[in-house]
Amino acid sequence: MIKGKFIVIEGLEGAGKTNAQQIVMASLQAHNIEFITTREPGGTPIAEALRNLWKEGIGDEHTTDKAELLMLYAARTQLVETIIQPALDKGIWVVGDRHDMSTQAYQGGGRGLSDDLLTSIKTAILGDFEPVLTVYLDLDPTIGLERAKGRGELDRIEQQHIDFFHRTRTRYLQLTEHNPKAIVINAAQSLEQVSADIKTKFEAWLQENHSML
Amino acid sequence: MIKGKFIVIEGLEGAGKTNAQQIVMASLQAHNIEFITTREPGGTPIAEALRNLWKEGIGDEHTTDKAELLMLYAARTQLVETIIQPALDKGIWVVGDRHDMSTQAYQGGGRGLSDDLLTSIKTAILGDFEPVLTVYLDLDPTIGLERAKGRGELDRIEQQHIDFFHRTRTRYLQLTEHNPKAIVINAAQSLEQVSADIKTKFEAWLQENHSML
Ligand SMILES: Nc1ncnc2c1ncn2[C@@H]1O[C@H](COP(=O)(O)OP(=O)(O)OP(=O)(O)O)[C@@H](O)[C@H]1O
Ligand SMILES: Nc1ncnc2c1ncn2[C@@H]1O[C@H](COP(=O)(O)OP(=O)(O)OP(=O)(O)O)[C@@H](O)[C@H]1O
Ligand SMILES: [Mg+2]
Ligand SMILES: [Mg+2]
Repeated sequence: MIKGKFIVIEGLEGAGKTNAQQIVMASLQAHNIEFITTREPGGTPIAEALRNLWKEGIGDEHTTDKAELLMLYAARTQLVETIIQPALDKGIWVVGDRHDMSTQAYQGGGRGLSDDLLTSIKTAILGDFEPVLTVYLDLDPTIGLERAKGRGELDRIEQQHIDFFHRTRTRYLQLTEHNPKAIVINAAQSLEQVSADIKTKFEAWLQENHSML
Repeated sequence: MIKGKFIVIEGLEGAGKTNAQQIVMASLQAHNIEFITTREPGGTPIAEALRNLWKEGIGDEHTTDKAELLMLYAARTQLVETIIQPALDKGIWVVGDRHDMSTQAYQGGGRGLSDDLLTSIKTAILGDFEPVLTVYLDLDPTIGLERAKGRGELDRIEQQHIDFFHRTRTRYLQLTEHNPKAIVINAAQSLEQVSADIKTKFEAWLQENHSML
């Protein structure tokens, strides 16, 4: 049985991940590739409960950076073990709205947790599990937060100082530039242009990497 | 400023930890040593929320062993960073109802998670932070669970198969026997005898290890 492939959409808030996920889904549908979608943190009842606790906190208690990191990985391993890996094993593709690169960018770049700590936890929990492709939507955080505001109240993460998001973006760029498993999209373009870029680049990737087409 | 000391009470459900904590507290009071108490998992609003999620789960979703491990460490690091370490830094002692040894015993011995995984996470999150003394109440799990039942409904953990608790006890014994930082108490004795044993052994430890007496 041929395994499914794990494709992940990454980017700052409001970068257009939900839109990008739709484009990728449409491509897969056009090629009759069976898939499911996930979002992180979350995607199972326990992972969603962890997401809420992480997003909302409790009262005004400050969640420490290490506690945050572990809550995110608890949600991630629950999702990978119970949903993503079983789907891939059945030959079903998975299109994820965020995955581990978010943690590397936000908790590493944004919060400033050390590479040592991040690598130990990632290796201990995920081993060599990783997406075959990451579509990263690159955008100035100021623009993304403006777009996200359109959706309503900003949550605990969205309320971070703008410098936090600049550090996160810098880390995202370090992780995706010259990365053969990443496609970088200029998300500052119009929605039409961004969508067209994703479609073209993803279709090219599919042709090159998916022997079944 | 002389730092406080971290004393931990360990043992299976119903072994008498709450009672042991009282005995240790009474000793510290008699010596005018300032202290606080903690319980794990829990002890801060976020850690208690994690405790509830871990204890109750959500519906009948199975929490994976790795997700459980990370939820426990998220709660632990939140408690250590925001409550335990600041108290010790101020010279205040901490008497904990459970700490890291519970994870080594239940998730290592009981669940069977590998030493490699446990060591990586512990080292990454706690570094060399550890109690100066662990009072371990050793008891056959059958007796402990009978005692615990007296308190009402058994929770998700207490409902594990008895073999789970036997494996946990075996690991506890491995961790405490020949451990100069542990006192092992035969918790199958009468409440009076157990209490007297704890008092005698803890007072002896205090005399030997606490220069201020
Ligand atoms: N290229 C674009 N130009 C202008 N507006 C856009 C563009 N891409 C997305 N938007 C709009 O910005 C908002 C956020 O887009 P979307 O929800 O896809 O982003 P997201 O990355 O999924 O955000 P979040 O991280 O908050 O889930 C939406 O209202 C969307 O229509
Ligand atoms: N040595 C003993 N002999 C008989 N009963 C005991 C003894 N020690 C404790 N008990 C009783 O057993 C019950 C459980 O004791 P306790 O609450 O101290 O255990 P615990 O280790 O804190 O349990 P848990 O892990 O569930 O918190 C209580 O009702 C207590 O009075
Ligand atoms: Mg979105
Ligand atoms: Mg108790």
